[in-house]
Amino acid sequence: MATVTETIQEVHNDFALTLEMAKDEGKKVVGCLCSYSPTELILAAGAIPVGLCGSTQEPITKAEEILSPDQCPKVKATYGRAIAGTCPIFPLADCVIAETTCDGRKKMYELLEREVPMCVMDLPQKPDTSAALDHWIEEVRKAKTYLEQQLGVTITDDNLREAIAKGNRRRKLITNLYYCRIHNPGPINGLEFINTMTKLQYYIDIDNHLETLEQFYSSLQEQIDKKVHAHSANQPRILWTGLGNSLGCSKVLELVEECGGVVVCQEGCGGVTRSEDQIILMEDEDPIVSIAKRYLRVTCACMTPNNQRFDDLTRLCDEFKIDGVIDLAWQFCQPFEIESYRVKELVKDTLDLPFLHIVTDYSQSDTEQLRIRVEGFMEQIATRKRHDRRN
Amino acid sequence: MATVTETIQEVHNDFALTLEMAKDEGKKVVGCLCSYSPTELILAAGAIPVGLCGSTQEPITKAEEILSPDQCPKVKATYGRAIAGTCPIFPLADCVIAETTCDGRKKMYELLEREVPMCVMDLPQKPDTSAALDHWIEEVRKAKTYLEQQLGVTITDDNLREAIAKGNRRRKLITNLYYCRIHNPGPINGLEFINTMTKLQYYIDIDNHLETLEQFYSSLQEQIDKKVHAHSANQPRILWTGLGNSLGCSKVLELVEECGGVVVCQEGCGGVTRSEDQIILMEDEDPIVSIAKRYLRVTCACMTPNNQRFDDLTRLCDEFKIDGVIDLAWQFCQPFEIESYRVKELVKDTLDLPFLHIVTDYSQSDTEQLRIRVEGFMEQIATRKRHDRRN
Repeated sequence: MATVTETIQEVHNDFALTLEMAKDEGKKVVGCLCSYSPTELILAAGAIPVGLCGSTQEPITKAEEILSPDQCPKVKATYGRAIAGTCPIFPLADCVIAETTCDGRKKMYELLEREVPMCVMDLPQKPDTSAALDHWIEEVRKAKTYLEQQLGVTITDDNLREAIAKGNRRRKLITNLYYCRIHNPGPINGLEFINTMTKLQYYIDIDNHLETLEQFYSSLQEQIDKKVHAHSANQPRILWTGLGNSLGCSKVLELVEECGGVVVCQEGCGGVTRSEDQIILMEDEDPIVSIAKRYLRVTCACMTPNNQRFDDLTRLCDEFKIDGVIDLAWQFCQPFEIESYRVKELVKDTLDLPFLHIVTDYSQSDTEQLRIRVEGFMEQIATRKRHDRRN
Repeated sequence: MATVTETIQEVHNDFALTLEMAKDEGKKVVGCLCSYSPTELILAAGAIPVGLCGSTQEPITKAEEILSPDQCPKVKATYGRAIAGTCPIFPLADCVIAETTCDGRKKMYELLEREVPMCVMDLPQKPDTSAALDHWIEEVRKAKTYLEQQLGVTITDDNLREAIAKGNRRRKLITNLYYCRIHNPGPINGLEFINTMTKLQYYIDIDNHLETLEQFYSSLQEQIDKKVHAHSANQPRILWTGLGNSLGCSKVLELVEECGGVVVCQEGCGGVTRSEDQIILMEDEDPIVSIAKRYLRVTCACMTPNNQRFDDLTRLCDEFKIDGVIDLAWQFCQPFEIESYRVKELVKDTLDLPFLHIVTDYSQSDTEQLRIRVEGFMEQIATRKRHDRRN
């Protein structure tokens, strides 16, 4: 099977070609850099939303000519993609929607703005107050106006309602896909699942995209019905939390499954809790308000105190019958690094589960060191399972 | 002369004693952690504002038992002060006012809240919009209510107006002090100036404090009048920008002056631009709004795009006849690290001045390496001055 990194590169090249054809036909492309970007605005503008976060090691050297090395690999790779000229997708973006999430991104965007027109939205850091919501609604409204001006379109409430319906449908399908892995034994391993999701995340036409997600779901459902299993019921069931849920985390994901575990659940901005959370569109509510409410609920360590993440983790560990939790932070990701202390408290002390905190980057230099730690973690889980069976 | 670190320790011990006596007499103490904390609220509540940022190496080891090492020394030292039990001032704080400035602080506060009652204000990251100001006004209002409840007092508009007048008077005096160094040759070296300012920044009674600042100003003014100089007119005049303006930066400051330079101007959250910027209190305006407006103007790299800093630097380099700019960032301070690229562009390309970017921490381990860089920088300035004289 291809590694996730190979998949990313292959998908980028294929997708760039299709995207270019769509642009030739007059389509506009809007880059997104985070789970806080309200893609419904882009869909409502008739444009194609494209994730532009860097997830590979290659562009980092170029980025470090300008950014200090102690920025997280995602910040460096994203900036590097833009300035190194190696990413076939980046130059196709007509503009980019971004948010003041973490320090690295926020400040890097000041330089990225030199490469592409950008709308950087001011994201409140304490999302639970009404003043924060009011502020964020204004930012979403400004992003809508920005897109209208930048793309030369008018976004009507009907456009927004239609985009919300499709966005919700998409999230529902992705949630269904994630929940296929609740079965033990299950129909798919973590690596194959993420490989497939990586390929599926790029789309030109949202309707075709929804159809493809449906097909993937049907195929998994069929395997579940026919009891075709990709792993045994005895393999340690791992919940993956923190960063790198969908891309760039291939190294650790591969190690976990090579060492006999199976990643059955992902929590975080690319994980199940982000797809579960729908836009609640009420008849008499301005759709901009409905969109703003949902995107302010995204759980990321850049928020404080981000308590929802802890409720989610507690629920998911129970639902997915988790044997151990791996918490991944990119090197120099200060918010997830600090929040990890509270995650450890929750997992070890409250949930009484084995816990492994990994700090890494996109390079391969620490792979063998990580293998030793992951092997030890799997052994810890196995010992515990043997002990539990005996008692 | 005492090093700045010695001064800090001595001042802390002396101040803790005086503070304890004030508390015995019923006074309340409110900790502040940043230039964004509206100290006028604390003064209006009849309480004593005390800066609680860590500026020494000692508490960092303890902090690293919980925080990851790749947090900036200020975040680690501040947290370490609280949990290590080595700081005599920290336990005297009845509560703390803080803000969601940078990632490290924001997330560290989630753990610091376990040690002391805290009000963490949500600080907008793009301060130039009306939605940001509205949001911040609400946060300042909440901080006022928090103090009233926590300290059992009522803060009236008259209390606020009086506190604003004193805060403005204090800033005016500090600005005057900073501007004493515009003279060349000048009445005081950078090290002595910062040593004195470090001692003066702690106060129990604002009126006594204002008097002491007046006295310091008179003494410098007298030296200027009598032409008593602390340095010659030929020494390289250095503008200090970035972090560590007032405390913790002693190592680099000492090196600059040992190598023949003199730090005549500081830009940044402890520098002249923060004291120049007054609260503009209009008759018919809610004083909370006036306070909020001023504190949202604080220039820090945690803001984006923080353009005011660049205007300030341009003006100060001219006013203070600067020969070279040193830009200091604490290790792992991602916002100042990235912003430094734009500072370098301004200083080298636009202002055509020698520029030195230093990344360091509170330890002494890199002192001799830094000495070589600072010596080279002074030589670069000297060569340039010789060359300028010849042409």
